[in-house]
Formats: sequence, C-alpha cells, structure tokens
Amino acid sequence: MKNDKTSQNYTLNRRNFVTGIIPVIAGATIPSWASAKEIQQTREDNDFPGLITREKKPLNMEFPFPTLKNRITPNNQFFIRSHFNIPNIDATNWELEIGGNTNHVIKINLSELKKLPAKKVMATIECAGNGRANLAPKVKGLGWEQGGISNAEWTGVPLSVLLKKAGIKVGTVDIILEGNDEGMITEEPKSPGKIKFARSIPLNIAMQDHIIIAYEMNGKPLSAEHGFPARAIIPGWYGMASVKWLMKITASEKPFDGYWQTIEYAYWKRVEGLPTLTPVTTTLVKSEISRPVLFEAVPAGKPYQVRGAGWSGDSNLSKVEISTDKGNSWQPAKLIGPAIPFAWQLFEFEWVVPAKTGRYSLMARATDQNGKTQPMEHDLDRRTYMVNFISPIDVDVI
Amino acid sequence: MKNDKTSQNYTLNRRNFVTGIIPVIAGATIPSWASAKEIQQTREDNDFPGLITREKKPLNMEFPFPTLKNRITPNNQFFIRSHFNIPNIDATNWELEIGGNTNHVIKINLSELKKLPAKKVMATIECAGNGRANLAPKVKGLGWEQGGISNAEWTGVPLSVLLKKAGIKVGTVDIILEGNDEGMITEEPKSPGKIKFARSIPLNIAMQDHIIIAYEMNGKPLSAEHGFPARAIIPGWYGMASVKWLMKITASEKPFDGYWQTIEYAYWKRVEGLPTLTPVTTTLVKSEISRPVLFEAVPAGKPYQVRGAGWSGDSNLSKVEISTDKGNSWQPAKLIGPAIPFAWQLFEFEWVVPAKTGRYSLMARATDQNGKTQPMEHDLDRRTYMVNFISPIDVDVI
Repeated sequence: MKNDKTSQNYTLNRRNFVTGIIPVIAGATIPSWASAKEIQQTREDNDFPGLITREKKPLNMEFPFPTLKNRITPNNQFFIRSHFNIPNIDATNWELEIGGNTNHVIKINLSELKKLPAKKVMATIECAGNGRANLAPKVKGLGWEQGGISNAEWTGVPLSVLLKKAGIKVGTVDIILEGNDEGMITEEPKSPGKIKFARSIPLNIAMQDHIIIAYEMNGKPLSAEHGFPARAIIPGWYGMASVKWLMKITASEKPFDGYWQTIEYAYWKRVEGLPTLTPVTTTLVKSEISRPVLFEAVPAGKPYQVRGAGWSGDSNLSKVEISTDKGNSWQPAKLIGPAIPFAWQLFEFEWVVPAKTGRYSLMARATDQNGKTQPMEHDLDRRTYMVNFISPIDVDVI
Repeated sequence: MKNDKTSQNYTLNRRNFVTGIIPVIAGATIPSWASAKEIQQTREDNDFPGLITREKKPLNMEFPFPTLKNRITPNNQFFIRSHFNIPNIDATNWELEIGGNTNHVIKINLSELKKLPAKKVMATIECAGNGRANLAPKVKGLGWEQGGISNAEWTGVPLSVLLKKAGIKVGTVDIILEGNDEGMITEEPKSPGKIKFARSIPLNIAMQDHIIIAYEMNGKPLSAEHGFPARAIIPGWYGMASVKWLMKITASEKPFDGYWQTIEYAYWKRVEGLPTLTPVTTTLVKSEISRPVLFEAVPAGKPYQVRGAGWSGDSNLSKVEISTDKGNSWQPAKLIGPAIPFAWQLFEFEWVVPAKTGRYSLMARATDQNGKTQPMEHDLDRRTYMVNFISPIDVDVI
C-alpha cells in the first residue's frame, strides 16, 4: 500500500524531478540521472556528482539540494547556469578590458590580475529563477527546483581596484560587466541577433569592497563551467549579476538597459499603480528544507532532524521557523554556525514526529534582520523571478 | 493565361491580404471583407467602408491604403488600433485627472475641457508596427500591411495648458498618459495581471504647443474606436504615444518604464555594441505606393499615374523618388500640396509604362529635410517596430 501511494505521488506531483533523485542519494541509478552522465562523458568522471540536469544545451545543472550537509558547496556540486555555450578561453591570450567613461582604457591579463591585492568573500549565489518550477500555473523558463543555488568562498580583486586603475570619470552611473558568452535568443521576445551576456551594477555598488573579480572558487581556479578565467562576484545579488567569462568592464554615463536586465531578469515595480520594468538585483530572504524531501516516508513517533538553509541578500538572518501543521504554528529552528554576510546559514530542527500516521506538511520560514520574512505566495509582478514563497514539503508519516 | 498567373501570385505572395481587397475597390464582395462586415453589425451600417480587419478581439483594422485619394482620412476610414476591448465611457461621468509631482491634483470634466483654449493640429498617426507583415521571416504581432496609418485634423487643448493648471513641480522628467483600456497580455512576455494602457513622454516634449489632448477628429467628436471622449495626440511620434480614452496624466520624477515602452513598443539601441532597450518614439521617414497595388495588371505602353504618400515624424519631406527598375535608377515624384508639419504628403508620378510586357518592380523612396532616407532593409535592432524599408510593388505589364 505505502509503495503504491508513494509512486502515485511521484507521478502526480509537480516536483517529481527532485523526488526522482532520492535513489541517487541512496546510491542507485535512475533514468533522470543518465542524462547528466552523458554530459559528464566529455569531462573527468564524477565531475558533477549528483548534479541534476535541467538543460543540456546550454548546460544548466542544479545542486542536489537534498544532499546539503556543509555550508560550502564543493566546486563540482555548485549549480551551473549558462545562457549559451560555455566559451573555451585560452588563459594565455585572455585580457580584461576596462574602459568607457574612464581616463584610460586598460587591459589586464590573468597573471597581472593575480598580482593585484586579493580578497576572499564567501557568497551564496542564487539563480533569479530558482524555485520557478514551484509556480502554478506552470511558467516558461528554465525549471529550477530547489538547487539553483550554492555557496562558495571566492578569491579575487575588488572591482574598485580595477576601476580606480582605469580612472572612472565624473558622471559615471553604471558599470557594465560583459561576458565572453554569446548567442541568439530565438524564442519571443527574441534577441537582436547574436548578443553577448552583459549586466550592469550601479557605480556605488561597484565601488564596495566585497564586489570582486574572482579567479578562484573554494581555493581552486575557476572551472570552465564557472567562468574561467575570471568572473564577477556580486554578493547579495541574484546570480545573473555575477557575470562569468568576464571580458570587458565599461563605465557608463547612463543607466544601462541591456537585454539581461530588461527582457530577462527584470520585474515589475509599480508607479502610480502602473507596472514599470526594473532590473532584478538583491536576493530576497528565503529558506529551503533539504531534509526530509518531498513525500519522504518518515517513521512515526520518533525524532526526525529537519535540515535546510536560509539566506537573505540584504542582511543576515534573524530566524528560521518551522511549521509542521500547515502554517498554523511555528517553532524556531537552530541556526548553525556564525552569520556570515552574503552567505547562507544552515539550520536544523528536531521534529517530534507524531505517532499518528498520515500526510504531514512541513514549512520553513526565514526572517532577516531587516524584518523581512518569506511570503506565502508568489507576487505576479515578479514575473518568474525572485521566487521566495514558502513551499511546503509534504511527507508521509508511516 | 494572365488570370492564372495572377491568381497564383495571390496565393504565393505574403501580401495576399492587401491584394485581396482589390475586388472591394471595384465594388465586389469577397470573403476577407465579410469578417469586417460582421463587426459592423453592432454599429451603423457602412461605419468603416473598406477597412481591413486584422483582428476582431480586440478590434484592429487597417485603412485600405490603395484607396488613398485625399490627404485627410475620413473618420470612418481611419485605422483602428486597440490593445484591449474598447471602453464604454459615459461622458457625463468622465473626468481627466492630472497629478503626480504637481502642486495640485486637478480633475477636469469634458465640458470644462472644451471651454479651455483649443488648438487644431493635422497629424498623421502611424502604428509602430505598420508594415510588419512585410518582414521576412514572418514575425509575431499584429500583421499590419500598409494601412496602419491615417491622417486627420485634431482639435484639443494643449497638454501644456493642463500641466500648468496642475503646477508641475521641479524635478519632473516624464509625463505619463494613462488610458481607460485595460486587460491582460497572456502571451509571453506576459503582463503582470490586468494592466492599463499607459505611455510616457518627456516633459520637454509634453510642454510643446502641438501636443494636445484632443476631443475632435476632423471636426467631429471622437468615436468610441478613436478614444472618446479624449485622447492624446503626439504629432511626429508613432501611434502608441497618442493614448486613447485618456483618464489620468501623471508627472513623474523618474523616467517611466511601463509595459508599453519596454516589453512592447521598445527597440534596441547599441551601447558599446550591446543592445539596450529604448522606447519607440519618433516616426521614421517612409513612403508607400498606394497605386498600383501589388500584382496589378498595368496596360503596356501607356502612361500610368503612380500614387502614394510619404511622411517623416522628424521633419518635412525633401523628396520622394520612384524607381521602376528595381532600384537601379530613381526619378523624382511630384509632391502634392504644401508641406504641413507632422502630416503626410501625397505624391504622384507619371510612369511611362514600357511597351514590353512582363513583371516590373516599383519602389518609392522618401527623404526628409534632415537628409534621412528610407533604407533598403529592416534593422533587426528595431525588433518588429519602425518598419520603414523600401517595399517593392511588383506589377504585371500586360
């Protein structure tokens, strides 16, 4: 009976892809994993253990969130987001150009970049579309479930150091970060032919110390998938701002309205009730339960360690709360380890599983030190971005 | 033989809808006309003689460009563009609100509006998507052929008079014009729920004398289809700025990035080679041949009066030229009547039709007094807007 019920739920539920990876955690092989394997054939075996393929061309893979154990995501488990083919860059020829509204146009190669004063920053990067698969009705776009997010320690040169070298002129308002990845969006709304991935950040953000041009991820050179040889890291912002395969930095006198902050990665802010298009920026407060997973069978009457992570781009967390009764009551979870700015914080909560068997619903709700808390529903004005509503994990107490 | 060839071309050619109206001009009834008839059943008979239906819900109809005879388009032949259902407005309750960054919020009813100093402006209004049907490959969006354009004389109150009444405060950069028409865009990219049609113009444009809030069109009150009881007229700009069913005018301290000037009615301007989203504004220089129509059979060896209209939102025309040999040589057409700012100018050209029968290609090319001239091809950066490339009219000399 139990097995029947569970397999039925796998079929019915919109989250069956994530539930599909449970056997992987247990070591078994299942079809959904096979597609990821295929990609790995072009790389060293076990390059991406457990990563969930969302798209093969271009390569988009999720961190297997139910395997969350440590604050730092190993490099080969860090989620992969690419908009076009991953560029094959020869580090010996690579140069980063800094120009636009500057006193000089400067070019820096990789060894010169590595000689500049470096800084380490821990930063959780969440894709702006993470959780999109949970939206109802179904939406277009890459169907990220839970794992369009990971956390690493990045090493690089503060962007401000490079901007000062080039000599930013008065009147600059935006810094455009341009990657080496390019291609064409053929679905509506189409891109105007081939375009390069590019994103801007305001000058006042760009000059902050923790905004770096990173060449290392958890102490190792960036892999091709993560932006080799150098990428931007914009801690506290959704991932689209942390431009990979960086090739050009441009000081602009006008706010930049590029494809990736207007047509894509933009949401609606209201002016006099009218929606106005605004680039997605800061990561909203959010938490996700990593264990139990959806429709996990949980033994009745025994304690169960609920686990997960919470984060907020704006500030540190003040609390994560758990509800085991569909949001009627909330109990505090324990935050693990110190608060580190821009990095997620793991949590745990000992659930006294009821003796009564049946379907139970678990929810996690994070609140940050600005008093912002996760909402119960998705706001339509956010389009398919910034999905941070509380997504219940239904389990079967057996 | 001749008839076979012609009907084959009707089928093959992308412009078969316009060619399909030839029998209407000759007084016959054809199926494409029937759909327009259906709409007319809700209105006085012959309300829209010859208008070509592009969409029934919402109502979108083209001016039958091949019937062009007079500079002024009769009200019942003026093209109709609506994004949502046409609002049913009771003039006795209607009020126009002017507020935002102003000293006062003022409300003006229709009889008060009509008592204010009025101004007459002749203005050609072209839909930003006019000519879209000629793009190859086929594009999405309403398939306007030649007739998403018409010319009328508008009577109304300069917007500046209303703005001065409300007392525009320092710091205002944009004036938002908001219509009473609303609905939901359900195709990607979707609107955030129901939205009202709204568009902004910069304050310096808004204060110009010829920008009016019109309540009459060719001396008659606006009909429901054309914005009753009052609409904006922004001469020299594509039609989307001339907001119909006007209900609210808002002074804004920031540039307004509404749906209809970002997702819709926006194009790509390059910054450092990168496409940046920019609202469609000024009407580009363009001319269209109204006679002959595509695949018209023209008698050999006799003079033929080629006709059409040319316009430019930026300035008056300096010339319209005709090529009868696929663009190898150009001859001046005769511009008819005086140049009137913001209004199209009709042209004619006596074509000495060759004695040799066969397929000939006619082209018209307008140049304005800024020296801007029609291009040979559509620029991809303009998306599906501002279509002004030279579109040849192929005819059969018999």
